[in-house]
Amino acid sequence: MKNFEFYNPTRIVFGSGKVAELSRLVPADARVLVLYGGASAQKTGTLDEVKAALGDRAVLEFGGIEANPTYETLMRAVAQVRQEKIDFLLAVGGGSVIDGTKFVAAAANFDGEPWDILLKGGSQVTQALPFGTVLTLPATGSEMNSGAVVTRKATRTKLPFMSALVFPQFSVLDPTKTYTLPPQQIANGIVDAFVHTLEQYLTYPVQGLAQDRFAEGLLQTLVEIAPKALAEIPDYDSRANLMWSASLALNGLIGAGVPQDWATHMIGHELTALYGIDHARTLAIVLPPLLNVQRETKRAKLLQYAERVWAITDGSDAQRIDQVIERTRQFFESLGIKTRLSDYGLGPDAVDAVVAQLEAHDMTRLGEHQDVSPAVSRAILMAAL
Amino acid sequence: MKNFEFYNPTRIVFGSGKVAELSRLVPADARVLVLYGGASAQKTGTLDEVKAALGDRAVLEFGGIEANPTYETLMRAVAQVRQEKIDFLLAVGGGSVIDGTKFVAAAANFDGEPWDILLKGGSQVTQALPFGTVLTLPATGSEMNSGAVVTRKATRTKLPFMSALVFPQFSVLDPTKTYTLPPQQIANGIVDAFVHTLEQYLTYPVQGLAQDRFAEGLLQTLVEIAPKALAEIPDYDSRANLMWSASLALNGLIGAGVPQDWATHMIGHELTALYGIDHARTLAIVLPPLLNVQRETKRAKLLQYAERVWAITDGSDAQRIDQVIERTRQFFESLGIKTRLSDYGLGPDAVDAVVAQLEAHDMTRLGEHQDVSPAVSRAILMAAL
Repeated sequence: MKNFEFYNPTRIVFGSGKVAELSRLVPADARVLVLYGGASAQKTGTLDEVKAALGDRAVLEFGGIEANPTYETLMRAVAQVRQEKIDFLLAVGGGSVIDGTKFVAAAANFDGEPWDILLKGGSQVTQALPFGTVLTLPATGSEMNSGAVVTRKATRTKLPFMSALVFPQFSVLDPTKTYTLPPQQIANGIVDAFVHTLEQYLTYPVQGLAQDRFAEGLLQTLVEIAPKALAEIPDYDSRANLMWSASLALNGLIGAGVPQDWATHMIGHELTALYGIDHARTLAIVLPPLLNVQRETKRAKLLQYAERVWAITDGSDAQRIDQVIERTRQFFESLGIKTRLSDYGLGPDAVDAVVAQLEAHDMTRLGEHQDVSPAVSRAILMAAL
Repeated sequence: MKNFEFYNPTRIVFGSGKVAELSRLVPADARVLVLYGGASAQKTGTLDEVKAALGDRAVLEFGGIEANPTYETLMRAVAQVRQEKIDFLLAVGGGSVIDGTKFVAAAANFDGEPWDILLKGGSQVTQALPFGTVLTLPATGSEMNSGAVVTRKATRTKLPFMSALVFPQFSVLDPTKTYTLPPQQIANGIVDAFVHTLEQYLTYPVQGLAQDRFAEGLLQTLVEIAPKALAEIPDYDSRANLMWSASLALNGLIGAGVPQDWATHMIGHELTALYGIDHARTLAIVLPPLLNVQRETKRAKLLQYAERVWAITDGSDAQRIDQVIERTRQFFESLGIKTRLSDYGLGPDAVDAVVAQLEAHDMTRLGEHQDVSPAVSRAILMAAL
């Protein structure tokens, strides 16, 4: 096992009806800015429920945080925070709203141009406003970690940052809040959590036995609940398991003490930034060919994944690896998620464009062995056509 | 899944050589009391290593915290803390030293008679000194939770308390610190972590799918590493997996959102308090007959445990339950842990005495259904003869 540090102080308040706990969780004298995305927060009544729980605290709102939140939008929220002397942020939404809120928290009192936070990955963040979240879309795990991804619209640049100062103080996870989501967003959430898990698991063995078992457990859980979670009539337990699994998939736990491979995410980010493909769908496009191209260095873990998650035990090593990559692709397709660039109207020109962006963003040594060069990324994307 | 709240702010610093990190983890201006157990902390050099890492901070020592730490001993540490104006505690040892340090942290500025903290289970604790730990004996999980158990020697009373104020700020987990432990303490640690896991798992199904998979993963990991962890020549990875699994077994994670059954622990505590049997050994005595007596209410989870952890799939339900209880007992025996009261020289008189103590301590409605009455505890103990 590799050495590691694990720290995660976010308080999870989980269950139906738990939005009411905001009255206890948010400081009584806070000046609160509630950040949210589109009109659904209002239509579903969640925003009203939040405001009712906040009682007579001073509450302002900032709506309109888009999927793949932009620097341009978020800087307007930063201006509002500064002008209105806000001292507590409350994100109501999914990963985009929460990521955006983390950026606002770090940027509000940042000394300098806040875009630098992204350019330097968060290392220079020395303070951040406290904030909590009400999660309405299980997927990214942002509700229980200290990372965020922000897009600069002007340059089509999508960059991550991390800082221990942007852990949410608390996150309210009420599975019933997912009942109004369209099926494609549930499917995206399943894929996002599934790929997060694989990116911390499918590398090479380091005797991280509990970490491997936990990762396999999350993958098995996501496979098990997928049909019910996508059913038209919402089912509490499948949504609850999706919500908690998505948080556990990226809260630092399964990645502690093991190698990680975030190449799928980094290549996927460029696809979203250039062509606006949903984040989770970019992962479903990139992951299967990446596993195939990297099949030799990932050999031992691919075979373990095949056996323990998919019960694939027949055939040669090569056959089992072929099978498990195909099963993974079929799983994504079974959720209604297309897995080919051509499904999204993209051809070889897009491969050139993505590789150019990877080079421009210094994403030239990706993967657990830093061997995913632009040439390897090109091979992966060509195989994704 | 049941509603739950999960909160665990302890920072884990894991790996060989990590004791040196104390220089960063302990406040630079702290007046530190280092608490430890017997002479082994000195003999092994760990105490010197700790003091070297603390540099020129003011450091005092309190040694002699016994297994099953006593109120009588700990109150002497409380007196030292008060007299020397200590503002940071550092536990160096296993669960007993860490539990004792939690009591000292809560008692130091407690307004009233500190034994009341135990009598009321910790609910009235409003402040505690900050503290960290250097773990030398993986077993109890105390290094990453907010609970402790203290024994009052005068009355042979062993009682737990919990408070969110006694989470360690950090815990240093260096697997090489276990290399000097005698095999029986490694065996005790495996059993303790194994039973902690089962007590949060072997109840009834509530669709806590990830929690079940995580619990099963810890059980599988402990079974897998046991032979190597007990081998004469220490093996880093098996000790590392034991250490991390023991923390994960009782840090709130696998018990979040599922029923729990702490009857084995509560009955075991009385055996330790009356007869001085090692804590883990009391669990190995009580658990198998408890599972047998409660086999109907635990039926579904016993069958799941049999299949997923031990691959027992042949035979009738009753046969598989018989087999898995026997396999569990054999696992304990394979570690050199005796599982019968008679192995420890105890007979029916001891059963009477333990049941009387359970009644005296109001432990009369134990288990996930509160149906482990004194009569049921008696049946369990009689079957443990």
